[in-house]
Amino acid sequence: MKEIFFATSNKNKYLEAKAILENFNIKVKWLKGKYPEIQAESLEEIAAFTAKWVAEKTKKKVFVEDAGLFIQTLNGFPGPYSSYVYQTIGNTGILKLLEGETKREAFFMSVIAYCKPSSKPITFTGKVHGTIAYEVRGDKGWGFDPIFIPKEGKGKTYAEMGPENKNKVSHRRKALEKFGTWFSKQCNNKD
Amino acid sequence: MKEIFFATSNKNKYLEAKAILENFNIKVKWLKGKYPEIQAESLEEIAAFTAKWVAEKTKKKVFVEDAGLFIQTLNGFPGPYSSYVYQTIGNTGILKLLEGETKREAFFMSVIAYCKPSSKPITFTGKVHGTIAYEVRGDKGWGFDPIFIPKEGKGKTYAEMGPENKNKVSHRRKALEKFGTWFSKQCNNKD
Repeated sequence: MKEIFFATSNKNKYLEAKAILENFNIKVKWLKGKYPEIQAESLEEIAAFTAKWVAEKTKKKVFVEDAGLFIQTLNGFPGPYSSYVYQTIGNTGILKLLEGETKREAFFMSVIAYCKPSSKPITFTGKVHGTIAYEVRGDKGWGFDPIFIPKEGKGKTYAEMGPENKNKVSHRRKALEKFGTWFSKQCNNKD
Repeated sequence: MKEIFFATSNKNKYLEAKAILENFNIKVKWLKGKYPEIQAESLEEIAAFTAKWVAEKTKKKVFVEDAGLFIQTLNGFPGPYSSYVYQTIGNTGILKLLEGETKREAFFMSVIAYCKPSSKPITFTGKVHGTIAYEVRGDKGWGFDPIFIPKEGKGKTYAEMGPENKNKVSHRRKALEKFGTWFSKQCNNKD
């Protein structure tokens, strides 16, 4: 089984990645901590910087994950700063910004950045398209889950679907599966 | 005259800093470029990281400046991400978030971080308290200037005051003056 370190402060993310990557015969170890994230307009750039930083610091093969909600009519806001925006204006703020707005298309995106020491980072993207609900719905999620209705969700928000169903179709799962497919094909323990 | 480098991509900021610091017998040179900024909830942390990064990279004594608008009733939003928030939802978005809200207190904050190679960064803060206007007013500013009414502004927004009057009382001026006072007192060219 190939081994890799996941640098994150979020235990739930670690457990989710561990379960998904086991299907690819990859053993995920938790590199628990908070690592520097840069300010940039693309999640790829942000995740790549952190992955490189952690790989050089620890001399290990690592990956990091970053995600965001991009609302079309708000020019991609809150995008890379979703976590900060959630903590300050929350779902209520997003709904207020969209009051009277019928164009409610949005997507959730997850980026995995992988890096080994002295190498360039490589990124893998998972995207789920959907719309922003007209009100907060469901209590089985976190963050923007109660206002995001994925196309595949039969009209339910992520928070109404609950983690098990959400994780079957989620943006994070898609990114992890792309990464798992690629990583499991690399020559034995060389990458 | 003591010399120091200002790392910024913004020519206007450079010219403003140069003019203000001349009063302290400090010659500012422009280190033009974009430098990595981390994601953090305090401007001090963000500016300190960048100053340290540039000082180590260039082996020069440098300072950087970062600023943000903090709106009390929005838990400090847009804060450290003011520039991104301005580019996406703009003044219109902020006004929409505050619709029906009479508590409109806010402050603009500027942080200067100074660093020399192999040292810890030092930060200097300038703050201007005020309120958020009920509509966009004035065309002589940029960013959130048309919606911010400083206490010292006699009811005018920064954008109605115009750059000359704004710069007399601005958050950036306050931070630069604190830094200038401190830096000019350091032993000759040692700091």
